[in-house]
Amino acid sequence: MSFEQDQAYHKTFIDLAIDLASNNVRSNCGGPFGAVVVKDGNVIATGVNRVVVAHDPTAHAEIEAIRLACRALASFQLEGCDIYSSCEPCPMCMGAIYWARPRAVYYAATQADATDAGFDDSFIYRDMALVPEARKIKMVHMLHQGAGASFELWRVANRKVLY
Amino acid sequence: MSFEQDQAYHKTFIDLAIDLASNNVRSNCGGPFGAVVVKDGNVIATGVNRVVVAHDPTAHAEIEAIRLACRALASFQLEGCDIYSSCEPCPMCMGAIYWARPRAVYYAATQADATDAGFDDSFIYRDMALVPEARKIKMVHMLHQGAGASFELWRVANRKVLY
Repeated sequence: MSFEQDQAYHKTFIDLAIDLASNNVRSNCGGPFGAVVVKDGNVIATGVNRVVVAHDPTAHAEIEAIRLACRALASFQLEGCDIYSSCEPCPMCMGAIYWARPRAVYYAATQADATDAGFDDSFIYRDMALVPEARKIKMVHMLHQGAGASFELWRVANRKVLY
Repeated sequence: MSFEQDQAYHKTFIDLAIDLASNNVRSNCGGPFGAVVVKDGNVIATGVNRVVVAHDPTAHAEIEAIRLACRALASFQLEGCDIYSSCEPCPMCMGAIYWARPRAVYYAATQADATDAGFDDSFIYRDMALVPEARKIKMVHMLHQGAGASFELWRVANRKVLY
C-alpha cells in the first residue's frame, strides 16, 4: 500500500470517529467523543460517549468500542485491530487499550484540545503520577495479612487462563 | 468513630474484597481480584475480574463494581462512596476511579505484588508516561482539519450535561 493510499485508508476511519463524536453531541446523547475498531479494513465496532445517559463513568467512546469489538470477536484481545478515536485517549481508555492490545491507535484531537473543551484528563495524568498519599482522591494502602491470599491461589491454579 | 472502630470498619470491607478475589480463582471465573463499593456502611456493589469469561478486557474488579454501583445509584458519580479493592488499581481502573469520583480508595495488595503474580501493570504505568511515539503500542496523532468539530458543537450545545 502506498503512503497516499495508506493516508486515505486511515482517513476513512478517523472521519467516521469524528462524525460519531459530532453526532453524539447533536443528538444530545453524550460527550463529544467517538471511536471505531477496525480489522482488515472492516469496522468491527463503534463507540460514543454514553457516561450520562448510561449512568456509567466508564462509558467512554473507546471503552464502548473495545467492549463491543471484543464481544464481536469473542476474544478478550483486539489482535490485529486498529482503534481510531476522535481524541487522544484519557488515562482510563489508555489503560484499557494496553489490556486489549490492539495493533495501533490513531487519534485526531489531542489531550490539550480535550482540556480546552472542559475535559481535563491531563489533571488525571498528573495526579496518577504522584505517590498514592499525595493524590486528590484519598488512596490508602491497608496492611493486611491476607493481602497475598488470592495471588497464592492463582499461582497454583491448574485451569487458569492467562490474560 | 474511634481509630479502632474505624480500622474494624474498613477491615470488614477489605476482607470482603479479598474473599471475592480468592473465590474468583477457586471457582475458575477469572483473575485474583475483587472490589467492593460502600456507601454509608452499606455494600452498594461488588465486582470480580471477568476478563476471560466475559471476553472483556475492561472487566476488572473495580470497573465491574463501579459500573454496578453507578447503575444501583442511577448516577454517573460515586459521590460519598468508598471503594475497597483487593489490590492497588491498575491504570485503567485508576482512570475510572478519577471519573467516578468516589470519596476514597482502600486497597490491600500493591502494584508490586500484582507484578510478582504476573500482572504487570507497572509496565503500563511506565509506558503511558512516555511520549505517544515512544510507546509499545503504536500511537499516531493524525492531523485533521475536522479534529475540533465535535468540541465546537459541544461548546454551543444548550442541553448538555457536564460530567
